[in-house]
Amino acid sequence: MEPRLGDVTAAPDLSRALPLRPELAGLEPYGAPQLDVPVLLNVNENPYAPSEEVVADVAAAVADATRTLNRYPDRDFTALREDLAAYLEVESGVHRAPEQVWAANGSNEIMLHVLQAFGGPGRTALSFAPTYSMYPEYARDTSTTWVVGRRAEDFTLDPEHARATIAEHAPSVVLLASPNNPTGTALPLDTVRAVLDAAAQVPGGCVVVVDEAYGEFRRTGTPSALELLDAYPHLAVSRTMSKAFGLAGARVGYLSASRAFVDALRVVRLPYHLSAVTQAVARAALRHAPELMAQVGALRAERDELVTWLRQRGYLAADSDANFVLFGTFDDRQAVWQGLLDRGVLVRVTGPEGWLRVSVGTPAETSAFKDALVEVAGR
Amino acid sequence: MEPRLGDVTAAPDLSRALPLRPELAGLEPYGAPQLDVPVLLNVNENPYAPSEEVVADVAAAVADATRTLNRYPDRDFTALREDLAAYLEVESGVHRAPEQVWAANGSNEIMLHVLQAFGGPGRTALSFAPTYSMYPEYARDTSTTWVVGRRAEDFTLDPEHARATIAEHAPSVVLLASPNNPTGTALPLDTVRAVLDAAAQVPGGCVVVVDEAYGEFRRTGTPSALELLDAYPHLAVSRTMSKAFGLAGARVGYLSASRAFVDALRVVRLPYHLSAVTQAVARAALRHAPELMAQVGALRAERDELVTWLRQRGYLAADSDANFVLFGTFDDRQAVWQGLLDRGVLVRVTGPEGWLRVSVGTPAETSAFKDALVEVAGR
Repeated sequence: MEPRLGDVTAAPDLSRALPLRPELAGLEPYGAPQLDVPVLLNVNENPYAPSEEVVADVAAAVADATRTLNRYPDRDFTALREDLAAYLEVESGVHRAPEQVWAANGSNEIMLHVLQAFGGPGRTALSFAPTYSMYPEYARDTSTTWVVGRRAEDFTLDPEHARATIAEHAPSVVLLASPNNPTGTALPLDTVRAVLDAAAQVPGGCVVVVDEAYGEFRRTGTPSALELLDAYPHLAVSRTMSKAFGLAGARVGYLSASRAFVDALRVVRLPYHLSAVTQAVARAALRHAPELMAQVGALRAERDELVTWLRQRGYLAADSDANFVLFGTFDDRQAVWQGLLDRGVLVRVTGPEGWLRVSVGTPAETSAFKDALVEVAGR
Repeated sequence: MEPRLGDVTAAPDLSRALPLRPELAGLEPYGAPQLDVPVLLNVNENPYAPSEEVVADVAAAVADATRTLNRYPDRDFTALREDLAAYLEVESGVHRAPEQVWAANGSNEIMLHVLQAFGGPGRTALSFAPTYSMYPEYARDTSTTWVVGRRAEDFTLDPEHARATIAEHAPSVVLLASPNNPTGTALPLDTVRAVLDAAAQVPGGCVVVVDEAYGEFRRTGTPSALELLDAYPHLAVSRTMSKAFGLAGARVGYLSASRAFVDALRVVRLPYHLSAVTQAVARAALRHAPELMAQVGALRAERDELVTWLRQRGYLAADSDANFVLFGTFDDRQAVWQGLLDRGVLVRVTGPEGWLRVSVGTPAETSAFKDALVEVAGR
């Protein structure tokens, strides 16, 4: 592998003069290795590149936006919020008003806004492990205390444990990934309701964010927490265009919540955080939602088949409502990861010890993964 | 004016349940009014829209980027950093390595990164007023204590006062806008050096950011703080593509500093903060730098003429190295602002009491401003 710009480390004599925050000392920037490998199944990207129709529509929309790019963008991205609300209604049947929708540069900026408004110094954010590995980074970046409860052996969340953990730590923010990353586990609405009710008992208040980054991949019959929004003003449901829409490179995350919740995020966002180009790209892609959703159906079927195949081969594979599968277990998962990489297949070392996570790719990529796994693990 | 989405305020009964941070209670989102007026001279935008050549090149670059938009972008935006370093060398004659360059969604995200790495709870950021009104917001968003010293009557900065203020407050971050917003004042390098030397004496360390958002508009003979970078590892110089490049809508800010400084920012940035589309747009625009720089020359000439005109009319007008002019003074600046707005010219109420700020527009826009001012103020 060639050295990359990102791999460069600091000259120690220079850094001594800099007042780096002590909690950051010695930390490496977060992120999966970006390696140049034929089969990339490590960061849950959508394997299907945008069609030439989408490319043409995006380019035309961006050309149009560029003609006035000397002007600042619409700070409140009114048109995009209208389009996102319309999309959510089609996708989940839940009606949301545009002013109940918020967007940012990826759902990680969404989470930053939430923690800036409701977390911060002297406050606690809580989730249940194993879960998304960026959550503690958001907490650290906002000087919010980070606490984790636990998920059960099968990666579900016990409502009683959730209630007790919330009562014990009195967080001001609870983050629930559903479907959960890296396990793929979706939460039943009853569990989300139990968390919301426990949060409502926290003195000083507590907001709950259900992170549905992978929501569109949920299996038939799995509900979305969007259905609960009208009943719970302290709930937000976040989504992203990175996964189902296949737009990881465009960095568009969004959430829906009560108007009061969204208005709080408006105070902490940097003005003009969402560029005119990003707004144009997102709106162009949303016009192609039906086409992109058809691919989601294919990926869901591919995912279910992969789970079945893994189990038939004697692996454990977690039930998945996402576009990835957590599988294992291996005595030396690092060796399996390396063996797959040596065969041109990049997966992710994440989750509890012994497990690996593989994203659902095209049928050809899934085949390559299966062949490599059989070679490496012998079954 | 029609009500806008952004104007909507929270339903009070809902917000009661939310744990909004107390320092945010009752705050309005930051930002100048976005009004639909013929002559927009309020937010220091470049009045020249991108040419059709730029539009075509941006659209082609974005089309190309969109073909792989299902993949996450290069987290370290290597190619863009190389292009920005090359541009800085042409613009200022100062050579910078790509790993000494950082970029983000607008220079406000640049400042957020700086304060997340070097500011934060228990630390202080310092500037000298009057200066850019967003600085205290960056401090608030990162729970950094905010302190201001003062500029002299003529908006210059007295090195002795700067030294004493730094010694008194022991900040970990000093922000110096040069040219300063809203006054247009550029700092001599000797003043910057005095600040850097004082910062080097702060126990625990202190970084200095010279915010050259308007740097390209500086008058002949005014140096850039880029020239000091090699000598001061605790210095960063920030720039933006919003002003000289006429790309306010694209949200591209950047800085140059020592590698250790930049590596610290890499730890606090959200992964993939700069979209593949933003990277493509910025690189396409940078290819047109010579064309865009010609417009900068025209705007500088227009600015100098406007200062002369205002003084001939008996107004005070601050020396400006930027693309705006602070002028006054008025007993009732709000009334003058309203009078201009009634005549279709939007300027900004900012700076010390009695002053207004007007951006340098096209010759036609400047004429409209002059005509309206003569009508409203009687000279």
